[in-house]
Amino acid sequence: MYPAIVRPVLNLAAPTDPSWLPRALAGLDEVLLDHAHAEKKAASTALTLIFRYPERADLARPLSELAREELGHFEQVLTHLERRGVGFGRQRPSPYAGRLQAAVRSQEPGRLVDTLLCCAVIEARSCERFQLLAEALDDSALAAFYRGLLASEARHHGLYVELARGIDPGAPERLKTIAEHEARVLTEAPAWPRLHT
Amino acid sequence: MYPAIVRPVLNLAAPTDPSWLPRALAGLDEVLLDHAHAEKKAASTALTLIFRYPERADLARPLSELAREELGHFEQVLTHLERRGVGFGRQRPSPYAGRLQAAVRSQEPGRLVDTLLCCAVIEARSCERFQLLAEALDDSALAAFYRGLLASEARHHGLYVELARGIDPGAPERLKTIAEHEARVLTEAPAWPRLHT
Repeated sequence: MYPAIVRPVLNLAAPTDPSWLPRALAGLDEVLLDHAHAEKKAASTALTLIFRYPERADLARPLSELAREELGHFEQVLTHLERRGVGFGRQRPSPYAGRLQAAVRSQEPGRLVDTLLCCAVIEARSCERFQLLAEALDDSALAAFYRGLLASEARHHGLYVELARGIDPGAPERLKTIAEHEARVLTEAPAWPRLHT
Repeated sequence: MYPAIVRPVLNLAAPTDPSWLPRALAGLDEVLLDHAHAEKKAASTALTLIFRYPERADLARPLSELAREELGHFEQVLTHLERRGVGFGRQRPSPYAGRLQAAVRSQEPGRLVDTLLCCAVIEARSCERFQLLAEALDDSALAAFYRGLLASEARHHGLYVELARGIDPGAPERLKTIAEHEARVLTEAPAWPRLHT
């Protein structure tokens, strides 16, 4: 019996489709590998923002702290991969993050605000799916790991929304548009076992 | 009276020119800003290597740990910049890192080995210069900060050499060539107040 999500969490526009969890559980090692790449990518995105906007001193410290935390999670996922005998390596990425970017405006400050909000939505979706995994996994060590990640994903979501709001007070309204775009991206995603499909 | 370095440290081919320290002390805020960028760049380089060589599982964890440490240092430098009333922002970078890259071979595994060895040499040079700063600074909080960084820079140097040796047992010999190149790059560097000029 899989847990039922009755309403979207953390400003998401739609809950995860019920088909995702059985697919993820059937391809758990692939999902775990995808998760490792996602943590690394999250750190890299935060670092890229520090490089791209050095004049925004208000972003540098929180994004650096966040990148450190994502890298810590990356190392934890590596530990679970090793424990399960799965090697870290290349993997065909889900088109999710790329398609999400299509909602980002090209002119500043919209570009920065939307990038931060896309990060916020990714964190929210991860949080929702980590909860699904935590409740359904037979691997108790992995379930405990995912339960432990929920709070930080929710905190990262809040941080990204706050950073965006600090730049544009209209960011929470814009978040709704980005979240609707994200829900559409998921309905068009390939049926691969990935964290974000 | 500035401290005299009588011999190169950590496999460097030549000690820092005596003109560097007075220039650095006279332009300390610029050096500190350069240091912030250097820590951020060090984290980014480590992360780039994880992205570029995902099949090298032996690199992923140590480089992730190193990147986290570099980001922690980045945040500490930001604190010192704030304390001294210097805003974090753009700065014309020293050509040092770019010119160092000219020694990197284009074919694998030489490209990876040389990149790791360039990182090792940069860490060694930072370590040497942090010691010079620690011994000469009037700002006692900053001097203590630089003294505290010495051990981690030396450890990072050793880690990069070990990672390179794990790929190519001839790496310690190749390190001499890279270190000689680094010493030449420094003799041709512009006389700006930067960490690596």
